[in-house]
Amino acid sequence: MPTPEKLESTGPQSVGIVETKVLSFDSLTLDNGETIVPLEVAYETYGELSSEKDNAILVCHALSGDAHAAGFHLGDKKPGYWDHYIGPGKAFDTNHYFVISSNVIGGCKGSSGPLSTNPKTGLPYQSAFPFVSIADMVNAQEKLVSHFGIKQLFAVAGGSMGGMQALQWSVAHPDRLRNCIVMASTSEHSAQQIAFNEVGRQAILSDPNWNNGVYGNHNRPSKGLALARMVGHITYLSDEMMREKFGRNPPKGNIQSADFAVGSYLIHQGESFVDRFDANSYIYVTKALDHYSLGTGKELTKALAAVKCRFLVVAYTSDWLYPPYQSEEIVKSLEVNAIPVSFVELNNPAGHDSFLLPSLEQESILRDFLSSTDEGYFY
Amino acid sequence: MPTPEKLESTGPQSVGIVETKVLSFDSLTLDNGETIVPLEVAYETYGELSSEKDNAILVCHALSGDAHAAGFHLGDKKPGYWDHYIGPGKAFDTNHYFVISSNVIGGCKGSSGPLSTNPKTGLPYQSAFPFVSIADMVNAQEKLVSHFGIKQLFAVAGGSMGGMQALQWSVAHPDRLRNCIVMASTSEHSAQQIAFNEVGRQAILSDPNWNNGVYGNHNRPSKGLALARMVGHITYLSDEMMREKFGRNPPKGNIQSADFAVGSYLIHQGESFVDRFDANSYIYVTKALDHYSLGTGKELTKALAAVKCRFLVVAYTSDWLYPPYQSEEIVKSLEVNAIPVSFVELNNPAGHDSFLLPSLEQESILRDFLSSTDEGYFY
Repeated sequence: MPTPEKLESTGPQSVGIVETKVLSFDSLTLDNGETIVPLEVAYETYGELSSEKDNAILVCHALSGDAHAAGFHLGDKKPGYWDHYIGPGKAFDTNHYFVISSNVIGGCKGSSGPLSTNPKTGLPYQSAFPFVSIADMVNAQEKLVSHFGIKQLFAVAGGSMGGMQALQWSVAHPDRLRNCIVMASTSEHSAQQIAFNEVGRQAILSDPNWNNGVYGNHNRPSKGLALARMVGHITYLSDEMMREKFGRNPPKGNIQSADFAVGSYLIHQGESFVDRFDANSYIYVTKALDHYSLGTGKELTKALAAVKCRFLVVAYTSDWLYPPYQSEEIVKSLEVNAIPVSFVELNNPAGHDSFLLPSLEQESILRDFLSSTDEGYFY
Repeated sequence: MPTPEKLESTGPQSVGIVETKVLSFDSLTLDNGETIVPLEVAYETYGELSSEKDNAILVCHALSGDAHAAGFHLGDKKPGYWDHYIGPGKAFDTNHYFVISSNVIGGCKGSSGPLSTNPKTGLPYQSAFPFVSIADMVNAQEKLVSHFGIKQLFAVAGGSMGGMQALQWSVAHPDRLRNCIVMASTSEHSAQQIAFNEVGRQAILSDPNWNNGVYGNHNRPSKGLALARMVGHITYLSDEMMREKFGRNPPKGNIQSADFAVGSYLIHQGESFVDRFDANSYIYVTKALDHYSLGTGKELTKALAAVKCRFLVVAYTSDWLYPPYQSEEIVKSLEVNAIPVSFVELNNPAGHDSFLLPSLEQESILRDFLSSTDEGYFY
């Protein structure tokens, strides 16, 4: 098992230099009947696919993520978002597994989305891009997986929106995965989760540059998108983590902008986000999140009746955005269906973002779940 | 004791028709050395001041409140914000007590604030109004109390920002009050509380009508202020209350505006707020909140060493904006100082707004605390 230092390191446990590739498929028919032509899927892979094609793990990213889950893009100082857990000897051990990571459709990181060219106009779709659902995101991933000739994934894993995709895989393609890892996630958004996303969307819609989602590169609704990110960022951290990290400290940087460190931090987060994300995509992806619903209670139990894989469900006590009771709903419904499920509630103090952060405990939970046999693994 | 229906009613237990009055004082010197000339204080009173002037209760309002705490303004259908608890036979029983309610300075409801005329220019101060603190708000109230010839208040009471004012009264004017009621409040804002206010301020500053806080009545930064209110409103309700009230229901009213009921509700809250609140005031008052600090732990114990009144501290389990641990900090420091304090944590499900809502349990807790002798009351 790696030491904490090694979890952070990029030496022999790094997948090294990687690049995002894009595959083009003829089309994807969406849940609502509309069609994306062509369908483009941006992806990265780490490790080698076995000759039996039985060692593939698909990892699914969260709201603002992309296909870059591990290793480094040439010249970058920061690795992919889940580099702590993907690499030789890490939890998703690329010495054993072939890890696939793809960007969701509706996003702005290489897969089909509002920035793609609308074949009808020759211009970017922007707000004319069709509504996409979590199910549509998964169906696009299914095409990528099939492209590699993989009939059954060894596992699908993700946190937050990635967890919702993993859950959707188990429901929509029950024969296509053996293991499902759902972290800091839910079977449907609560009113509070919708509310935070709605405020973010309203901030974008209130920006004078919004123009119904048709804007040039130099007239983007950046202030609205930055506000949306600021609101979101508060919800990703726990109260405790914020107290520890910022307390009531004075602001850093431009002290005109905010009176306290937490304010200047959020402003910085908002400003840097607009350089790497598109406002239309923010609206499409948050709507996909809000509209996803497998229900709760009996409705969820029914939705999960036909799943065939085994599950690891991870929640965090400090995660008030996706509180543990939402994970417990999933676990209860799986148990009613007699589907093998391990549930872990971790005390990591960081809040919702915990699934992204290095944790030896989390590392070993993921590793043990993946390496145990179908029968042998229960907490 | 009133029945639940009577708590809601406005019959014999209502203070009836009231109006907000304004008193003008020569000036108020602020904590930062600046002076407000003249100082205007908007207020209402309910009940009769005793000849001994020993039955006065000052109630302090929260962020968006005003002097109108009970009864009805002529023609209004909605009573004052704390009408459930102020009136003949109610917790703050106007058959016995003389209840004073005043608008905070820095606000926009009649007391000196950004909408007041700047004597140097003859125009509204707007963003040229000096920074005001919670201590300054309390010192303005002290002038009002002295105007009535009251040497010692029977009690000061408030929730949220009102609780911070009540606490500040006990520290700044220890001989001037016998009882202090602090509900859903804190001795200082945490990073998370500051963060939510900061996003609200940034929304206002991002509005193209903001213009450094100098705007005409027809060019107000209404979109930014509405966004600030939307963010705030989420924090005032509990996750549970939102699920119960909105769930994943479809939107009401303009269905173009939002995809879910919680969204259309928040949009409505934001839009109606801009009709009754000023963006500059929102910035001044939230800054007063964020900068208020009696510390925590030993620092707070030291700050509270000289207080002389007895305390009732009320927290709500479902209040995640001002979580109970913040109330417990106050209670602990009072106890170290051997100051009489009763602490109640209530299970009301509504979240932070619980202190504003009708509750027979809360009614009787307030009533019992006020009617008990100094020695006789401890939970």
